[in-house]
Amino acid sequence: MGMIGGGKDAFIGAIHRIAANMDGQIELVCGALSVNPAVAEESGRMLFLDESRIYTNYEDMIKTEAQLPADKRMDFVTIVTPNFAHFAPAMLALENGFNVVVEKPVTFTLEEAQQLKAKVEETGLMLLLTHTYAGYPMVKEAKQLVKSGALGKVRKIYVEYIQGWLSRLSEREGNAQASWRTDPSKSGKSGCMGDIGTHAAHLAEYISGKKITQLNASLNIVVDGRMLDDDGAVLLRFEDGVTGTLTASQVAAGEENALKIRVYGENGSLEWRQEEPNTLNLKWLDKPAQVLRAGSGYTDRLSTYATHNARTPGGHPEGYLEAFGNLYRNFALALSAKIEGVEPQQEWLDFPGIDDGIRGMAFINNVVASNQSNEKWTDYTI
Amino acid sequence: MGMIGGGKDAFIGAIHRIAANMDGQIELVCGALSVNPAVAEESGRMLFLDESRIYTNYEDMIKTEAQLPADKRMDFVTIVTPNFAHFAPAMLALENGFNVVVEKPVTFTLEEAQQLKAKVEETGLMLLLTHTYAGYPMVKEAKQLVKSGALGKVRKIYVEYIQGWLSRLSEREGNAQASWRTDPSKSGKSGCMGDIGTHAAHLAEYISGKKITQLNASLNIVVDGRMLDDDGAVLLRFEDGVTGTLTASQVAAGEENALKIRVYGENGSLEWRQEEPNTLNLKWLDKPAQVLRAGSGYTDRLSTYATHNARTPGGHPEGYLEAFGNLYRNFALALSAKIEGVEPQQEWLDFPGIDDGIRGMAFINNVVASNQSNEKWTDYTI
Amino acid sequence: MGMIGGGKDAFIGAIHRIAANMDGQIELVCGALSVNPAVAEESGRMLFLDESRIYTNYEDMIKTEAQLPADKRMDFVTIVTPNFAHFAPAMLALENGFNVVVEKPVTFTLEEAQQLKAKVEETGLMLLLTHTYAGYPMVKEAKQLVKSGALGKVRKIYVEYIQGWLSRLSEREGNAQASWRTDPSKSGKSGCMGDIGTHAAHLAEYISGKKITQLNASLNIVVDGRMLDDDGAVLLRFEDGVTGTLTASQVAAGEENALKIRVYGENGSLEWRQEEPNTLNLKWLDKPAQVLRAGSGYTDRLSTYATHNARTPGGHPEGYLEAFGNLYRNFALALSAKIEGVEPQQEWLDFPGIDDGIRGMAFINNVVASNQSNEKWTDYTI
Amino acid sequence: MGMIGGGKDAFIGAIHRIAANMDGQIELVCGALSVNPAVAEESGRMLFLDESRIYTNYEDMIKTEAQLPADKRMDFVTIVTPNFAHFAPAMLALENGFNVVVEKPVTFTLEEAQQLKAKVEETGLMLLLTHTYAGYPMVKEAKQLVKSGALGKVRKIYVEYIQGWLSRLSEREGNAQASWRTDPSKSGKSGCMGDIGTHAAHLAEYISGKKITQLNASLNIVVDGRMLDDDGAVLLRFEDGVTGTLTASQVAAGEENALKIRVYGENGSLEWRQEEPNTLNLKWLDKPAQVLRAGSGYTDRLSTYATHNARTPGGHPEGYLEAFGNLYRNFALALSAKIEGVEPQQEWLDFPGIDDGIRGMAFINNVVASNQSNEKWTDYTI
Repeated sequence: MGMIGGGKDAFIGAIHRIAANMDGQIELVCGALSVNPAVAEESGRMLFLDESRIYTNYEDMIKTEAQLPADKRMDFVTIVTPNFAHFAPAMLALENGFNVVVEKPVTFTLEEAQQLKAKVEETGLMLLLTHTYAGYPMVKEAKQLVKSGALGKVRKIYVEYIQGWLSRLSEREGNAQASWRTDPSKSGKSGCMGDIGTHAAHLAEYISGKKITQLNASLNIVVDGRMLDDDGAVLLRFEDGVTGTLTASQVAAGEENALKIRVYGENGSLEWRQEEPNTLNLKWLDKPAQVLRAGSGYTDRLSTYATHNARTPGGHPEGYLEAFGNLYRNFALALSAKIEGVEPQQEWLDFPGIDDGIRGMAFINNVVASNQSNEKWTDYTI
Repeated sequence: MGMIGGGKDAFIGAIHRIAANMDGQIELVCGALSVNPAVAEESGRMLFLDESRIYTNYEDMIKTEAQLPADKRMDFVTIVTPNFAHFAPAMLALENGFNVVVEKPVTFTLEEAQQLKAKVEETGLMLLLTHTYAGYPMVKEAKQLVKSGALGKVRKIYVEYIQGWLSRLSEREGNAQASWRTDPSKSGKSGCMGDIGTHAAHLAEYISGKKITQLNASLNIVVDGRMLDDDGAVLLRFEDGVTGTLTASQVAAGEENALKIRVYGENGSLEWRQEEPNTLNLKWLDKPAQVLRAGSGYTDRLSTYATHNARTPGGHPEGYLEAFGNLYRNFALALSAKIEGVEPQQEWLDFPGIDDGIRGMAFINNVVASNQSNEKWTDYTI
Repeated sequence: MGMIGGGKDAFIGAIHRIAANMDGQIELVCGALSVNPAVAEESGRMLFLDESRIYTNYEDMIKTEAQLPADKRMDFVTIVTPNFAHFAPAMLALENGFNVVVEKPVTFTLEEAQQLKAKVEETGLMLLLTHTYAGYPMVKEAKQLVKSGALGKVRKIYVEYIQGWLSRLSEREGNAQASWRTDPSKSGKSGCMGDIGTHAAHLAEYISGKKITQLNASLNIVVDGRMLDDDGAVLLRFEDGVTGTLTASQVAAGEENALKIRVYGENGSLEWRQEEPNTLNLKWLDKPAQVLRAGSGYTDRLSTYATHNARTPGGHPEGYLEAFGNLYRNFALALSAKIEGVEPQQEWLDFPGIDDGIRGMAFINNVVASNQSNEKWTDYTI
Repeated sequence: MGMIGGGKDAFIGAIHRIAANMDGQIELVCGALSVNPAVAEESGRMLFLDESRIYTNYEDMIKTEAQLPADKRMDFVTIVTPNFAHFAPAMLALENGFNVVVEKPVTFTLEEAQQLKAKVEETGLMLLLTHTYAGYPMVKEAKQLVKSGALGKVRKIYVEYIQGWLSRLSEREGNAQASWRTDPSKSGKSGCMGDIGTHAAHLAEYISGKKITQLNASLNIVVDGRMLDDDGAVLLRFEDGVTGTLTASQVAAGEENALKIRVYGENGSLEWRQEEPNTLNLKWLDKPAQVLRAGSGYTDRLSTYATHNARTPGGHPEGYLEAFGNLYRNFALALSAKIEGVEPQQEWLDFPGIDDGIRGMAFINNVVASNQSNEKWTDYTI
């Protein structure tokens, strides 16, 4: 693995490295870790990279690595730069034969995402989009449970992603995370909805298997002086008559990272909360509620997707980093299978890719369009 | 107390009687308990009413009781009939000098509610509208906490009221509750929003002290064959730039009576869930979350409104019936004070009345109007 | 109902009255509410008693009431005095033909309890011992569930009752409750174990159907200057090889009324917590955990004992007062059936009586004996 | 790092590798991964070890590695064999100049532990004992909170560790974990108390800062045919008049890994549950309860021990593997500091070592002795 962005002090780069390290299948071998050459070099050394593979810009890295013999060069590139700087390195990597891992949102604009998709299809290379929450075992279980029909026909989806960390104008107080995420030139046309609303929308579609078809959005800038939405709510219509709501906020003072989804079918419902991720609550119309637990002993009751994505027995809580690690692990397993020419397990292929990226960008566009419209409902277009 | 409606097998009548009995201050002395004379009589006997005060229609009851000497006749009338049959007995009672307790929604139409208000003002009599959830001690605490400014300026309100009991077409399966509540001729122009959405809206305005000014509603009939909405969601704008969402459903399979509210201010937030009502969760931007408990020993930390409305020490859970009982207790205390000509405590006067009824009817009207409109936002009018 | 003790400002008397009022089947008709005649009179008036039936001592009350015609006199006496003053009025009531409700512990000594039992048997009158926690619907469910064999053979019982209200020497600070409960001349030979340990022991035996046979107790006086144990723990052996622990404390700072029981069988286990009483958690060896809820719609899955003891549908929380009310309601139903000569339902007869009282007194004796012994195990004797 | 034991299919070896990998500071460079040479070799290859450093017995590994130049050889040995095979490799490693990581219990007997301690002191090398639960950030916070005096003088400690995985005679059904853990020749003189009771005892002493001085234990073999205790309870006396209980079971059907501790002081109390490890609940005598969260934004309210041991912001749950990783990370940081001759931070030195190992072995001895005694209390001796 080679990394672009994610130098010392970057939040998400460190997370990616832990996730990639976790299972001992992936090694960080090179990096262009910062646009600041000094930071890039210092960061590379702190990470024990070979001096010759500490790069100061990503073009050098991709081109130089491409010259190395196949068994020496990196197998894939991970891109953890701010949103506006995803597209160019991803394209260059693909053009030079490297598989790609990229943070969400996949690009800065939908058009870029579509170009990237074309390139992925053209090259036949693999792309992982790190929608972390899809890596949790009980999210996998939820998806399989809906798919199995146990809940009956799906009727309602409520998803919410509530944070409080932007309750103040932190972007003016030297908070680097806040600065770029609230800056339209770096983050894109939406703040809160782009940053976390997309996770919520992805989770809703991923678990329910239903696509959003229309939306009715209202976004807010709650904190004076902010340049992008920091809060919003969306009424949703999905395929097959399913309706729902999506709520996202970064000004909900006191909340941490409260992503929660509920899906209601004719016979029962499921509820999953990211802050207590090893539990999947099921409630039924005609029988007592059930509590499914990741890693539990009654493994025959859990789907193979849930068991494949857990490392420890029930009661040994796994968390955000393990979910993130699952994305990398499945990507690495699928990549190895491809390299070795063997058939992958279906569980390995269950990671977000370029199509999820396209929908994420479309979600941002459509939410922003709906917010600007006086019409109640806006069609979800790509 | 005399009761209109609420004969044997009626759900809410029995609840009212328990609530009224609880504190030993109110006695059921007469009733016109059913439109079916045989049921009215049997019900009256089961409740140990004096034979002479078992009536078979409410007009008789009101007129006959009005002839009794002041120390013998009922002090107030409780009306627990279906929605369409609230207005007439309420007016008659007021016209004959009786105070009134009435289930929500206060009337069948907003116009009736306004006439009732005029009559209340004209007569100077008292009216209690049984928005039960406003009777919980930790709801009282929540209101006082917002009022105190502890959370800072209010920014967001999320309220949801989710049930699953109408997940099937129960109105065709002999469920009496389901039958009248889903029948427009008995329930009014909205089903779910009228039945439980109004509770949610009341709670949001009661706790936050902010009135709804605009709404963007989408209602659904989820179960085929149903005549009124059984599900819906509303984006809300309140006074002073506060925004929010209101979600209500009666087809959320597996849910019981999941009323929950969250209010976010600049500094922190509160969360209250009806199904665990003795706890009020507070989360803060800059300090650890707190858990306030009804009846707790640190009574100096709770408002007098919370302590006045709890009967037992912390850890002895009080519930729905006690909350209901608090409405009756405060009404009775205020009524006694008025009769005796003494100054009531402010805590006694904190019960829902005709103005809350007006807003409830307006909420129904406005939600239905918004649902029918293609405009995103509909002004909240009365 | 006539009441002995429980004048204004008394805690438990007020609780009994609410519990008895709740279902509209029981009326307080007379009282000897305090040993202080002025208090007795004032309290009687506050409760709207007829002047002629406000008594200033219990002997007068019992003897005078006994002279009244059968349809006028009280049907039973409720005794809510401190522990040392239970026996005499209970005996006198029985001797004069009155049924009895008495707070726990039933008497001051085991010998008195045995005399009382003999009198109950001799007279054929009924006695209700208010072990409140046995009145909760989900405690009833737990008992029936164990009885059904669903958990398999019972192996382990953990019960704990943890409070914090005696964390300071409140008996010297004018706290009336604390004063008599920590005074050996009023409370008996044990403080914490007598007051709340007995509830825990009762609950364990009630739910599991297993009797304690041996115990290994260690009691503590944690707060300097206190005269009775305020904390303790007991290792337990029950019939049929079941083992367990009982923990009780009144100096667990921050706890309210944390009574909790867990019962483990070969196949699964149950957990019930008084502070969230409408939920019964079941965990299974080979399948997902389940959550049973009082009043739920899947009533065919709950025992008739649970449904009989709930007044409201699921999600309308019932609490301590309703549990208390259930004791009174069942006692009243059984008493009415007896008076009317009809067969009672089995659910009505499921209330604690004199045999539970005997075991409570024996528990206190045995715990105190074990605490004083250097032998590890003390046989549970009666 | 070199690893002894932990070949493919071993549970705890894989856990150690994830924990060591996590932060990118430790590399597995060699291993003697199984006593079965074929398994050792296959396992080594699966872990990408250099062929030359895949050993088939630990003596070879230690001796060969010791010959390598200092910058090539492993820095420390991790021993993850069954209990009876800890001592010999640990001694040999120390004698050859290697630092040691060892699973708990540190040895098979207390005498071995004492010899190991002497060797550690003689060589000045470092030893990490993997009491995982001491690695959680909120356990660190709990310890510091008690130390700060915020709770007041400690009075009570309740600790429990409840599992259900040995509810059946799994050791006869081919469960390898169950087999050695219930075999006295491999596990030692206690089963449940040695395996998990020691964790509970360690946690209690670690957080409270109080040492156990006397105990009153009762152990059980619940499942017929088992050779070691699978369940037990212990009444505890600690220094300074603190009392407590320790409950451990592996036959609590339905439980996963329910380790929980509560510590009560004069002013308030703390509660931590391993299954929801990012939360530390504080309850207070005179003020509302608080909820401390790992990684929270109010970092100035958390101790540096808590913040040092968290990798992610609040609401991104960390779990068992991260806690385990913290042990390795702190050990590696302290070891690096020592190698580089710099002063370690105090937070790095906060990992369990040989003294904790000694107390663990003594706990086992004392619990078994107390269980066999008819005396109520047994002194805790080393």
